[in-house]
Amino acid sequence: MKKIINDSRDLVKEMCLGLIKAFPNELELDEDSMVVSRRKRREKVKLISGGGSGHEPAHAGFVGEGMLDAAVCGDVFASPSIMQVFSAIKSNRSESGVLLIIKNYSGDVMNFESAAAMAEDFDTKVETVCVNDDVSIERVEDRRGVAGTVFVHKIAGALAEEGASLNEVKTLAERVIKNVKTMGVALTSCTVPARGKPTFDLEADKIEVGVGIHGEAGIYRDTMLSAKKMAATMLEKITSDMPLEKQDEVAVLINGFGGTPLQELLILNYETACLLEQKGVSTFKTLVGNYMTSIDMTGASITLLKLDEEMKRLLSAPCNTTAWKETGV
Amino acid sequence: MKKIINDSRDLVKEMCLGLIKAFPNELELDEDSMVVSRRKRREKVKLISGGGSGHEPAHAGFVGEGMLDAAVCGDVFASPSIMQVFSAIKSNRSESGVLLIIKNYSGDVMNFESAAAMAEDFDTKVETVCVNDDVSIERVEDRRGVAGTVFVHKIAGALAEEGASLNEVKTLAERVIKNVKTMGVALTSCTVPARGKPTFDLEADKIEVGVGIHGEAGIYRDTMLSAKKMAATMLEKITSDMPLEKQDEVAVLINGFGGTPLQELLILNYETACLLEQKGVSTFKTLVGNYMTSIDMTGASITLLKLDEEMKRLLSAPCNTTAWKETGV
Repeated sequence: MKKIINDSRDLVKEMCLGLIKAFPNELELDEDSMVVSRRKRREKVKLISGGGSGHEPAHAGFVGEGMLDAAVCGDVFASPSIMQVFSAIKSNRSESGVLLIIKNYSGDVMNFESAAAMAEDFDTKVETVCVNDDVSIERVEDRRGVAGTVFVHKIAGALAEEGASLNEVKTLAERVIKNVKTMGVALTSCTVPARGKPTFDLEADKIEVGVGIHGEAGIYRDTMLSAKKMAATMLEKITSDMPLEKQDEVAVLINGFGGTPLQELLILNYETACLLEQKGVSTFKTLVGNYMTSIDMTGASITLLKLDEEMKRLLSAPCNTTAWKETGV
Repeated sequence: MKKIINDSRDLVKEMCLGLIKAFPNELELDEDSMVVSRRKRREKVKLISGGGSGHEPAHAGFVGEGMLDAAVCGDVFASPSIMQVFSAIKSNRSESGVLLIIKNYSGDVMNFESAAAMAEDFDTKVETVCVNDDVSIERVEDRRGVAGTVFVHKIAGALAEEGASLNEVKTLAERVIKNVKTMGVALTSCTVPARGKPTFDLEADKIEVGVGIHGEAGIYRDTMLSAKKMAATMLEKITSDMPLEKQDEVAVLINGFGGTPLQELLILNYETACLLEQKGVSTFKTLVGNYMTSIDMTGASITLLKLDEEMKRLLSAPCNTTAWKETGV
């Protein structure tokens, strides 16, 4: 394992400090709880997300005007503790209330919900939503929260910025969650720094189809596919779960897992766009890049979000985070 | 070799089309010459850059308001032809003139300068500047143009957007070039898709120090270093070439080569920032991410740009490209 790190035990702290050093006027870090928050705060519904580290730029990269108020950074691939999440709520509490955006992993759900319950004792209204966009898993209750989470951050974040109530923001976040679906394919495993070796072995001509973002193997193993066939495989799974019709409008996220070069993601986007055009589906907005990674895994996921007019407006609203900026023009 | 591609001969075209599909309102592609241009054009000094592909998001990702007007996309690691560059000049010609921003590689210099000479016959004033920021090479004339090129795009682009003359934009671009220095380290080689195997072999505990962005081995091979020592090694080389004093202000670019996860780049930024603070040097702006890549190479470069007041103003000016956005607030 070769990585640009020092001691792997200091990785999360040094990474968060590296972010703060780059954006000292925009972000601040509570080093005790590893919570990254906006430096400029104002009264509004506060949005907090987070989870294990290793998904950079998620989630700290989405803290800023128009998206999140704070991100709680757990150890690599490990949920932050109840006390870490509680600390984020406490330092970002608001009369308007707090919404926790949780990815559907048992550790995250347990710790974020426990922290929310603790916070109720401190006169802070806290609601939670749970993202489960990974369609590779059949049972909806078991589906993991993956790249589609970023659309929840953006759209709920824009509504909160406009001054909407906690109930309105939560209702919209749930509508986004219902309409966002993701499917991912891995070409290689990732390497967790503290472990020092790949989380699974994969032959040179094989891929894992239906992967999460924690270095798990996929739902099944296949032989390597062309970009065109890979896009078709992923889109078929997504649209069998969420049928799309002519005149439907979608947002597309072609998400890299950390080790995949942009040239490959752009080719995957080309094939995805061609397939959507063939179906007569309109693409309102496309993102291509590393948004929700699995450390250094190579591979990619495709996320589709079926849009309505309110979501379109909020998706285009200005935001100013380190990993997603919209100028609003 | 596992890559999300179809036929490697179609890679550049499909990649450019994938970019246009993602940003159809902002960018357009001339498929004959592989030139990506802004869709909305206006009279001003036009900035054109480009070179071999494989450096994504450079250069097409920097086409847009406040930066480049067009990027010419050659084959992977191969200069675009004279006719490709000439075509970019022709379709972006301007009464105010055209500035070509070239990276110092012999093929690029020859083809861009030949195209500039051809264009003079068509009553278009064309000037060129040549970026040579790679301090790993001793002889200044032989230094390659690498990640520092992105600062030239940004600062010269902002001045051109303000309506400055060709001479003014060229003079400033040359001042940026004189003050921008880069040093890079590779942990692994890259794999050129058409070749199918790594461009060099490197032991599991070794790194190449002083690499360019075309899969070349470095100036020397070293044993793997901690992030702290790696930052110190690179900064020492840069500052031995461009001494920094207390009160100097710099812009920093921690640039990934395509396969390096953001968490490692953030740690490298942490160490870089600490070292600059120890020297009493102020950091005005920091970028961390994949800006000038070498396909899927792992490793990173550090770029320092010594700033003056005009550069600071232009670095912060609004820009709206797919790979670098400044909101101007």
